[in-house]
Amino acid sequence: MDRIYGKHSVRAVLLARPRDSKRLVLAGKQEYFDDLIALARGAGIEPELVPWKNFRRIGGFTDSEKHQGVCLFAKHRKILSDNHFDTLRKAQLVVILDQISNPQNLATILRSAAFFGFDAVITLRNRSVGVTPEVVRYSVGGAEFVDIFKVTNLARIVERLQDVGFWTYGLDERGTQTLAETTFADKSALVVGAEGQGLRRLTREKCDFLVRIPGGRRGVESLNAAVAATIAMAEVSR
Amino acid sequence: MDRIYGKHSVRAVLLARPRDSKRLVLAGKQEYFDDLIALARGAGIEPELVPWKNFRRIGGFTDSEKHQGVCLFAKHRKILSDNHFDTLRKAQLVVILDQISNPQNLATILRSAAFFGFDAVITLRNRSVGVTPEVVRYSVGGAEFVDIFKVTNLARIVERLQDVGFWTYGLDERGTQTLAETTFADKSALVVGAEGQGLRRLTREKCDFLVRIPGGRRGVESLNAAVAATIAMAEVSR
Repeated sequence: MDRIYGKHSVRAVLLARPRDSKRLVLAGKQEYFDDLIALARGAGIEPELVPWKNFRRIGGFTDSEKHQGVCLFAKHRKILSDNHFDTLRKAQLVVILDQISNPQNLATILRSAAFFGFDAVITLRNRSVGVTPEVVRYSVGGAEFVDIFKVTNLARIVERLQDVGFWTYGLDERGTQTLAETTFADKSALVVGAEGQGLRRLTREKCDFLVRIPGGRRGVESLNAAVAATIAMAEVSR
Repeated sequence: MDRIYGKHSVRAVLLARPRDSKRLVLAGKQEYFDDLIALARGAGIEPELVPWKNFRRIGGFTDSEKHQGVCLFAKHRKILSDNHFDTLRKAQLVVILDQISNPQNLATILRSAAFFGFDAVITLRNRSVGVTPEVVRYSVGGAEFVDIFKVTNLARIVERLQDVGFWTYGLDERGTQTLAETTFADKSALVVGAEGQGLRRLTREKCDFLVRIPGGRRGVESLNAAVAATIAMAEVSR
């Protein structure tokens, strides 16, 4: 069972996976939660409004977790793998992350992907940060509306996507064209590198196009990885 | 005296304010620091390569601070105020932040502003997060290449900017036009709201245009504030 907290994140689970939602615990003023209470009842669960002390104990919260008095217990979020490739055949817009290590960056990318209507976010099984409760919370609901894949080999997944009709666009400072100069295909996969290092050679070489975000100066050569990914997603969805 | 740490942040200070840089302390392998050592010598200071133990003591580091073995002591970074408005007369591109409270978001905005050639970032004196060492570090150099203002009244600064020829664009979900539909003036000021709340009424009413980023769905109605600000900056600089 997953523990999801924070108003937006809980609301997103109640919207996206009502059947997976099992128990909603609230603390504070009931009138703040009208929307959540209605959603929970729609999902067939009766919210429990409890004193703060009980709330913290039931949720097992540390002081640094920003729960906003909202905690949902729900079935474990399904993370997909290479075995679920068929799901990607039907997808249109996909983001592939090469070694993303910062939880806030992963969370931001999930939120942006959901906002811009992307179908899936694909990360590396072994070298990326996991979809932790902190990531879910910080994605402010975003984690619920995109499929999340953890795969073993990025170059391989790029190839498989190409085989089923995707065009792949690597974000790279050395790109030959800018984002604005790029026409994105209906089935587009963005490939985004790690903070600091950018795309690894093997991944980069597999991409159909290398595109760059114009800007930068000596001393500030790059953007935050999640921000760069979002700018590209905004451009694709445009 | 400020303590600046992390490779990129220190490099940015040595580039942007060589005369303010007073002492550079390094730990680790000297060959990682060739670039920094050359910059420091150009600024007239001789770097000190010390054992890790001494490094942590000199810098007063906690375990959570990602210093990368690089610490610079430099004159205090000047934060500007309403009294320095003349600096803004000559500016072209400006970002105004309405109550930004998350340090990572402020840092991301500073980095993006530097990347896209913005001249200044303006925040509220009383209700925004400060330019802490953490913010400077997380801006990866960005904090050095834009003027940072802390002002007392945002609606007033919007008016003053309008008086000296700026057009002001508020980012707002209820905007009548999208970013892509907007033609930005040579002197443009972007106004960005707080995480969660957006622009306050008074600030919103002062803006010449309200623009929105198209996207979103039930459950994920908005983007992270720093991400939204960056998308707008990318569009303005385009």
